[in-house]
Amino acid sequence: MTSSLRIGIAGLGTVGTGVAKLLQGNKTLLAERAGAELELTAVSARSKQKSRDVVLSGIAWCDNALDMAQRSDVDILVETIGGAEGVARELVTTALQNGKHVVTANKALIAHHGVALAALAEKNGVQLAFEAAVAGGIPILQALRTGLAANSFKRVAGILNGTCNYILTTMQKEGREFDDVLADAQAKGYAEADPSFDIDGVDAAHKLAILASLAYGTKVALDALYIEGIRHITRADIAYAAELGYRIRLLGVATQAKEGISQRVHPCLVPADSPLGLTEGVFNAVQAEGDAVGRVLFQGRGAGGGPTASAVVSDLIAIARGERWPAFTFRTANLAEAVRVPMEKHRCGYYIRLTVADEPGVLADITKIFAAEKISVQSLIQHTHEDNMPAQVVITTHATLEEAMQRALNTIHALERIIEKPVMLRMEMV
Amino acid sequence: MTSSLRIGIAGLGTVGTGVAKLLQGNKTLLAERAGAELELTAVSARSKQKSRDVVLSGIAWCDNALDMAQRSDVDILVETIGGAEGVARELVTTALQNGKHVVTANKALIAHHGVALAALAEKNGVQLAFEAAVAGGIPILQALRTGLAANSFKRVAGILNGTCNYILTTMQKEGREFDDVLADAQAKGYAEADPSFDIDGVDAAHKLAILASLAYGTKVALDALYIEGIRHITRADIAYAAELGYRIRLLGVATQAKEGISQRVHPCLVPADSPLGLTEGVFNAVQAEGDAVGRVLFQGRGAGGGPTASAVVSDLIAIARGERWPAFTFRTANLAEAVRVPMEKHRCGYYIRLTVADEPGVLADITKIFAAEKISVQSLIQHTHEDNMPAQVVITTHATLEEAMQRALNTIHALERIIEKPVMLRMEMV
Repeated sequence: MTSSLRIGIAGLGTVGTGVAKLLQGNKTLLAERAGAELELTAVSARSKQKSRDVVLSGIAWCDNALDMAQRSDVDILVETIGGAEGVARELVTTALQNGKHVVTANKALIAHHGVALAALAEKNGVQLAFEAAVAGGIPILQALRTGLAANSFKRVAGILNGTCNYILTTMQKEGREFDDVLADAQAKGYAEADPSFDIDGVDAAHKLAILASLAYGTKVALDALYIEGIRHITRADIAYAAELGYRIRLLGVATQAKEGISQRVHPCLVPADSPLGLTEGVFNAVQAEGDAVGRVLFQGRGAGGGPTASAVVSDLIAIARGERWPAFTFRTANLAEAVRVPMEKHRCGYYIRLTVADEPGVLADITKIFAAEKISVQSLIQHTHEDNMPAQVVITTHATLEEAMQRALNTIHALERIIEKPVMLRMEMV
Repeated sequence: MTSSLRIGIAGLGTVGTGVAKLLQGNKTLLAERAGAELELTAVSARSKQKSRDVVLSGIAWCDNALDMAQRSDVDILVETIGGAEGVARELVTTALQNGKHVVTANKALIAHHGVALAALAEKNGVQLAFEAAVAGGIPILQALRTGLAANSFKRVAGILNGTCNYILTTMQKEGREFDDVLADAQAKGYAEADPSFDIDGVDAAHKLAILASLAYGTKVALDALYIEGIRHITRADIAYAAELGYRIRLLGVATQAKEGISQRVHPCLVPADSPLGLTEGVFNAVQAEGDAVGRVLFQGRGAGGGPTASAVVSDLIAIARGERWPAFTFRTANLAEAVRVPMEKHRCGYYIRLTVADEPGVLADITKIFAAEKISVQSLIQHTHEDNMPAQVVITTHATLEEAMQRALNTIHALERIIEKPVMLRMEMV
């Protein structure tokens, strides 16, 4: 082994430490596969004193992460600091400008500034790589970029946030409410102290925006996404969905629509026996549907030191081998503008739950309103309660334009005997 | 788009025609993704007259496939003729010698001669690529070579033959016997007129040998594999397995064993709710387990014109982009010899079915024999029949060395009250 690639890691949290451990633990194997030695030469982190599960003797320490972009003994910068702005952005920008390859696990940075950074990498003849930014250890970006690149994609849909999937599957299996399970997930370290980034769908949106760009050749643009989180999902809706043969999952879905590439993150009912319905707990899964290949599923751990480090190091190996690729499949100059496809134009089946005063005639009113909007009911179940509680009417519909559904629900909500705001969830036939 | 890569397809069966259609149908998209035009310049097949679902006007026709290796208007040869010897082997060899890249879907050729052909490609500075040879449209070779390359693999296990998986899942779902379902599969075109290549595990063995080489850096060597097909699987065993929470699948499994890389293809009991247990019908699935990434599942269609063409064209795109890679991850000179790990040294849980004369005492004899071999019984169920038929004793064991199990079964078989040869199936905790 004559050649060697010198690596600097900025940030020694779970991921950065995981990368360092993997480079050390699988040193010989990695050199054989990469055709070059992957040599860790420098690291930086906020605290040098903090005890870490990795040996750093003989490796240069930088107190200031920004110094990593200047070091002559660093060929590739691994950025695992995180955050769309601040040190991470400045460091990656400077490193690319200084002719260093950059491998990052930072989905927020790539979702916000990925195209500009990719253009900078092109200009400086270096590689920007971020396999670890989406779905952790699952090599889905590489698959979209190369392994499935022969296909025109009908749909790319995924469970992209393990925290949400853990919460939703636990709510279902244990029959518990959202707040209760969230608190539990926080205690177990599956959810952050401030969980909004995960449970409001922002993290999944970052990842979907990147997936959509690679699949469809559009610029990553978060403002082209519809984003809805899972705070409003109740135990009752999960149970009714299960009764009908569905699971509720937070999906990121990109499809080719008439108006452009539709990109949306929201909870969906998916068939219980579908691969995404069967994906439980902290697992991630992405299903890509191509015109030639049909449906291909990728499933694995979407977070954690090991899986994320696996993805980071796979990028390092590819760069060491001399592989170079346009970060978003197309060169940045050839990426199309992403347009926001309004959700009003979305068509899908809907799950509707209405809380109604249990009086004769209310169903006739509801079905009449649906009929007026040409909404075709697929199933209707009225759950009555012995103890004089309001009845729950659960309806699923055939594919319907969302604006028609919204109008119908507004009209229904105004009915006297409708006690609560109607619950509306979209169905996704994955 | 200035550059162009000129492609010749040898063989216009399902796969060859699929490739031609995909090159034509997604022409613009492919050029954008590849950064070069993928131009189909020449084809060859046995019959020019045969009606095919693809337009071949303006494309040179070769009556003799071997001419494709000589044409100056062919930069890449796509070989979809099939077979380990004969025209396919001669054509691929000559094309590589003549400095042409070769993309093939021919698993038999790669399993038998892959290392020699890869060495020839290295010598001539061209690429040999065969993503389509394993698991059809699933980009698993690329994933092992790059996306998961940071990992030391604990196990790679897959459902690699759609015909067998269709037969086994249909037997289970419809409660039918093997011969009956096989005849049905033949009528539907899921199985060949001579099905032995599929149902005796040979096709799966070809694919596993390739997977094992990429995952473990050993030479592809079919004689290092243990191969057992599915002819002996009965409706009864499928039903008893289901009762215990298992499915029977034909798996190809490669693991790191003490003696070397263990490679085996045989029917296994897998947990019904495991990803491989949930893989049904003609689908293929591969589960790779890495030390860093954990378990990653890839699932999709393993055969058919579209999926296979998707894989072939993904190789064409990578080559057009200028990517070059060692065909088996390592350069051929660095591949280790594959050694055959004797099945006697294999350890797993076992499913045993014994047909016994329903007399008191026989269970005592059986459990005593197991105890003598230090085999730990996990469960034992005796199914008795009202109509004086012999009883069926179904036993599962904890992990046991196969040679101990074989000795025990030989002793049990010799018991007077054991009416038929004991059935033994291995369990795989995927």
